[in-house]
Amino acid sequence: MIKVQLPDGSVREVARGTSPLDIANSISPRLAAAVVVARIAPLTETPATEGEAALEASEEAMYSSHATGSRIVDLNAPLTEDVTLELLKEADPAALQVVRHSAAHVMATAILELYPETKLGHGPATDSGFFYDVYREVPFTESDLAAIEARMAEVVARDEKFVRVEETREQGLAEYEAKAEFMKVHFIERFAKPGEEISLYKNGGFTDFCRGPHVPSTGRVKAFKLTSLAGAYWLGDENNQQLQRIYGTAYFNAKDLDAHFKRLEEIKARDHRVLGKQLDLFSIQEVAGAGLIFWHPKGGLIRKTMEDWMREECIRRGYHMVFTPHIMRRELWKISGHEGYYSENMYPAMTLDDAEYRLKPMNCPGHVLIYKATPKSYRDLPQRYAELGNVYRYERSGTMHGLLRVRGFTQDDAHIFCTPEQIVSEIEACLDFAEAVLKTFGFQEYRVELSVRDPKKPGDFVGSDEDWAKAEGALRDVLTGRGLKFQSFPGEAAFYGPKIDVKLVDVLGRLWQLSTVQFDFNLPKRFELEYIGEDGAAHQPVMVHRALFGSVERFFGVLIEHYAGSFPMWLAPVQVGLVPISEKHLEYAETVKKRLEAAGLRVELDQSNQKMNAKIRDFGLQKVPFILIMGDKEAATDAVSVRTRGKGDQGSVTVEEFLTRAKGLVGSHSMEL
Amino acid sequence: MIKVQLPDGSVREVARGTSPLDIANSISPRLAAAVVVARIAPLTETPATEGEAALEASEEAMYSSHATGSRIVDLNAPLTEDVTLELLKEADPAALQVVRHSAAHVMATAILELYPETKLGHGPATDSGFFYDVYREVPFTESDLAAIEARMAEVVARDEKFVRVEETREQGLAEYEAKAEFMKVHFIERFAKPGEEISLYKNGGFTDFCRGPHVPSTGRVKAFKLTSLAGAYWLGDENNQQLQRIYGTAYFNAKDLDAHFKRLEEIKARDHRVLGKQLDLFSIQEVAGAGLIFWHPKGGLIRKTMEDWMREECIRRGYHMVFTPHIMRRELWKISGHEGYYSENMYPAMTLDDAEYRLKPMNCPGHVLIYKATPKSYRDLPQRYAELGNVYRYERSGTMHGLLRVRGFTQDDAHIFCTPEQIVSEIEACLDFAEAVLKTFGFQEYRVELSVRDPKKPGDFVGSDEDWAKAEGALRDVLTGRGLKFQSFPGEAAFYGPKIDVKLVDVLGRLWQLSTVQFDFNLPKRFELEYIGEDGAAHQPVMVHRALFGSVERFFGVLIEHYAGSFPMWLAPVQVGLVPISEKHLEYAETVKKRLEAAGLRVELDQSNQKMNAKIRDFGLQKVPFILIMGDKEAATDAVSVRTRGKGDQGSVTVEEFLTRAKGLVGSHSMEL
Repeated sequence: MIKVQLPDGSVREVARGTSPLDIANSISPRLAAAVVVARIAPLTETPATEGEAALEASEEAMYSSHATGSRIVDLNAPLTEDVTLELLKEADPAALQVVRHSAAHVMATAILELYPETKLGHGPATDSGFFYDVYREVPFTESDLAAIEARMAEVVARDEKFVRVEETREQGLAEYEAKAEFMKVHFIERFAKPGEEISLYKNGGFTDFCRGPHVPSTGRVKAFKLTSLAGAYWLGDENNQQLQRIYGTAYFNAKDLDAHFKRLEEIKARDHRVLGKQLDLFSIQEVAGAGLIFWHPKGGLIRKTMEDWMREECIRRGYHMVFTPHIMRRELWKISGHEGYYSENMYPAMTLDDAEYRLKPMNCPGHVLIYKATPKSYRDLPQRYAELGNVYRYERSGTMHGLLRVRGFTQDDAHIFCTPEQIVSEIEACLDFAEAVLKTFGFQEYRVELSVRDPKKPGDFVGSDEDWAKAEGALRDVLTGRGLKFQSFPGEAAFYGPKIDVKLVDVLGRLWQLSTVQFDFNLPKRFELEYIGEDGAAHQPVMVHRALFGSVERFFGVLIEHYAGSFPMWLAPVQVGLVPISEKHLEYAETVKKRLEAAGLRVELDQSNQKMNAKIRDFGLQKVPFILIMGDKEAATDAVSVRTRGKGDQGSVTVEEFLTRAKGLVGSHSMEL
Repeated sequence: MIKVQLPDGSVREVARGTSPLDIANSISPRLAAAVVVARIAPLTETPATEGEAALEASEEAMYSSHATGSRIVDLNAPLTEDVTLELLKEADPAALQVVRHSAAHVMATAILELYPETKLGHGPATDSGFFYDVYREVPFTESDLAAIEARMAEVVARDEKFVRVEETREQGLAEYEAKAEFMKVHFIERFAKPGEEISLYKNGGFTDFCRGPHVPSTGRVKAFKLTSLAGAYWLGDENNQQLQRIYGTAYFNAKDLDAHFKRLEEIKARDHRVLGKQLDLFSIQEVAGAGLIFWHPKGGLIRKTMEDWMREECIRRGYHMVFTPHIMRRELWKISGHEGYYSENMYPAMTLDDAEYRLKPMNCPGHVLIYKATPKSYRDLPQRYAELGNVYRYERSGTMHGLLRVRGFTQDDAHIFCTPEQIVSEIEACLDFAEAVLKTFGFQEYRVELSVRDPKKPGDFVGSDEDWAKAEGALRDVLTGRGLKFQSFPGEAAFYGPKIDVKLVDVLGRLWQLSTVQFDFNLPKRFELEYIGEDGAAHQPVMVHRALFGSVERFFGVLIEHYAGSFPMWLAPVQVGLVPISEKHLEYAETVKKRLEAAGLRVELDQSNQKMNAKIRDFGLQKVPFILIMGDKEAATDAVSVRTRGKGDQGSVTVEEFLTRAKGLVGSHSMEL
């Protein structure tokens, strides 16, 4: 007999070999029909600390988690030891990954039925669907996908059971060699050692070398679609066969599948590179180089607005704005340790007549030098230095992506030098500030991650055990004290200290790395930083790195996608578009323009000789929040006819009324119009 | 007979060989006694255009001007051709240069009388005095200077006439060789060709190889002082004799001499490097490299205030704030021409996996790329792009000087792309803006220089004759239209276009290069810039570069020296210092602090346990505009006792009254407190 503990804490004793499906059935047949796969973990494992949620969805994390020792198994896998058991239904993200993997098998089944000469590579689930790499002398075309899809529907209708079979590596090799499945042979040789057992999954006449798990039967693959076809050389070598990767996605129901494609369209419509061009916000110019951003007037206006807000908030919160050079002597990067630990991310040195210089990839050493420039007493602490610092980091050409992955960017970087007693309140203040950023820029939701030291590998980390315990404790206490749910990642801390990362959730539910708050035990030591304590003796200050936007460029990219270019009033580069109905209303429009501008609004008057509707359309394409139309009636009554973005015609109001409303929206940083 | 035209336009006919002194005597003996030297120019030369003042003081310009063909001569030099004649009195800057040169001869006379073994090098006037290079086996010490000075007084008392003698180069060489005057021999060989006549000046028993001119007699060297002693190798070669350079200065009267030393003290007290350290504004750090500025919290606050003002003014004046990368591909610098014309001022290239990159020394190509990124119509012009752009220019190590000469700096750079019809109004607007900068930052006076093409060398300049004529005409018209006096420098234009430079005059009367407004015919051509005109055809826009601060770093250096660190209220990093009389007034002081801060003032409360007077002294050393002292009386009456910088105790006022006054001073950018 073995013990099986269910999520409610109850423990059942069942015969060794009992399957999760058996247990589900013993609870209720309806449950058995609803479950897809099971998650088990050895019963002896310490459960995750309260408040620390499970790891995020990723293929690897789905199937097994090093943190909790859990893994996903087939419903009919025999249980052979004491375990905790979770029966996963369709709503579970892990179940989604499994059905996608099963869909890849269904696709492979269909392909081999239709084109038996096809050879198979590998076919995993991905974050957004699945794919299978295949080889066929006559390459597939887009038009073949419909036929494959139709046959997949038949495989699903046949509701073939997925059956796990184990055999020796040698048996497996022999079977695949007989079928000239060169890629499968390669994978078995690579992933199994001689004499080992391998697992295969069969459904109907199709068998695949696979570690599983799968849904119980092909009938569970209810909603799927093939999406595209791409080419690649076998093992990335252009002397090898040219494979094709057939992409698809799968869900448990048609509604989710539809939502997936709607979401893809939404993501495409929000692509910051496309909107950046369409709204004339920024450009990346081949002739100037990769990953370098040119902020055009309208993007520059938004950046200025973001930076102005950030600078004023920094000052309000007791930071000092400092400025440090963009190049510094190699000697300094040696002292800071960047030459040793970060050199491959740095630009090559420039040799002048006095020394070698390197572009800064980080602002920290500059701020450290400012701290060090004058003696400090405990009365002077905390010292908070903030800079909108332009840093350059080398990325391989071809890996850049719009504003999100660049070579040059601007950190809203700050370094706090404080006493150990000030740590908690400083971290609190950083998180307050990070939350203010999120709220101000229109994000409701965020996730928090705590990266701590791997206590088993103290040698990988700089600083004393006591320092680490204190720092990690401070971070954990602050998060817990704020009632924040957070994930903890042992071993993920930087070598110089633990950190908190804040990831925002955008309007499409996507996660983006935003703020980071990091301890640093390294630089204060390397630069021999000091302050004179109340006791008259010299002490080493604690140093905290923090960036809230993270990268101004990247955050701008996220903003563009979050708002799909329809920026809230305070960020919109043009806030009001003026459309005189005809030439004779131009004069009135100009007086309105002056009044709005005098109130600090950003106004554009369309003086072209286009028709009114064309002007309205143009402002609409530019996603201008308000379009004011002015004809005889408006001119006579000191009024404007208002078209609000996303709401259409809102009727006439007096100029004064509009002004009050518009100024209110700007002043309150309102997300709504 | 020859013609001599006097400054009033009258022309006298005098015998060839008549001297300026003869003419002065013929006008009035009092005039003859007052004049020092004469400036003559061939009568045929076109006089300088009205409104264009004489060249600035510099040794070279003093003695001869290429622009006007004029030169300075002794009062008793015989006139040999038709000339214009100016009789220069002591007040003329050129006369000052002459008396300093004569003082150098007086010093040499004294030295040879006291130490006849001394050999002489050269002894010119400088902008601030004179020096003579001398060689003596037993080097002079500082204490010898008093003896030399005393003997100089005797030489002056003897009132020896300066007499010009001409002889052949060979005679001169023989005489000096006889005396083993190796340096004089060297100079004659270098400056005179075989067979040429050379000039010597004699006073009493002393003779010197010298081109002159001089004051009439040693008695005119009425006020002088020797200042210092420095060492240097003959001809800069350390294998040669070690010379000594003896420095002094001279004026026509003791009052001017005193003023000179007061001014030197004033300049020293205002040295921005000293004040920068004392007020903790900025630093330059050996370990980070030469010519790279670290802005500390207080300097950073001033910079932010300067930049905020500049950004808001730019936007108010129709500029767009843009941002461009700090590095760009070498390819781009080839297109722009910087690789060819400016390479030696640029940092070495950095080679990445896709291209070579170079740090930007200028922002222009970046702005050009933004212009070029979208098609432009005449309706879109002018486009005004402004950026606080960080540029890096190579300077030899050892040549840097505080904030004034650096390797990395921030230009408040803008580029205007406009139609030819818009040139005049754009230049007007640039000058308005430059004047606003001057006024806002507390400068009353400025000088304007117009650099134009040398029409005789059209090949040295890019662009058509017509373009140049139009651009130069526009600049000249704007300057004349504004009633500005300006100096014109033919041949001093950049190869790509003419320019206007504005130099500010600081509180000590020193000139500093401030704003520049430059035409550019080059970049629009190289980058093939276009706009579609009203005629539907493509045209090339006019491009104007302009910077108003010039360099933010440099301008900050000038501000520190101009204000001697006593910044006006709106720029002061700490505006109000709070001093509670004793610990029991701390609470009241804290409420005052909150009220002042809520009104946006920058306040520092001294909570230390120092005595009140020590706190007042500390704030005084920090040049804080207002120190507010608070005791029982103040706490009881909601008041503060005010000490105003430079004015002392101003008595008590209510907090409300102080707030109103302080806010008024900030809002009005007042220079006074």
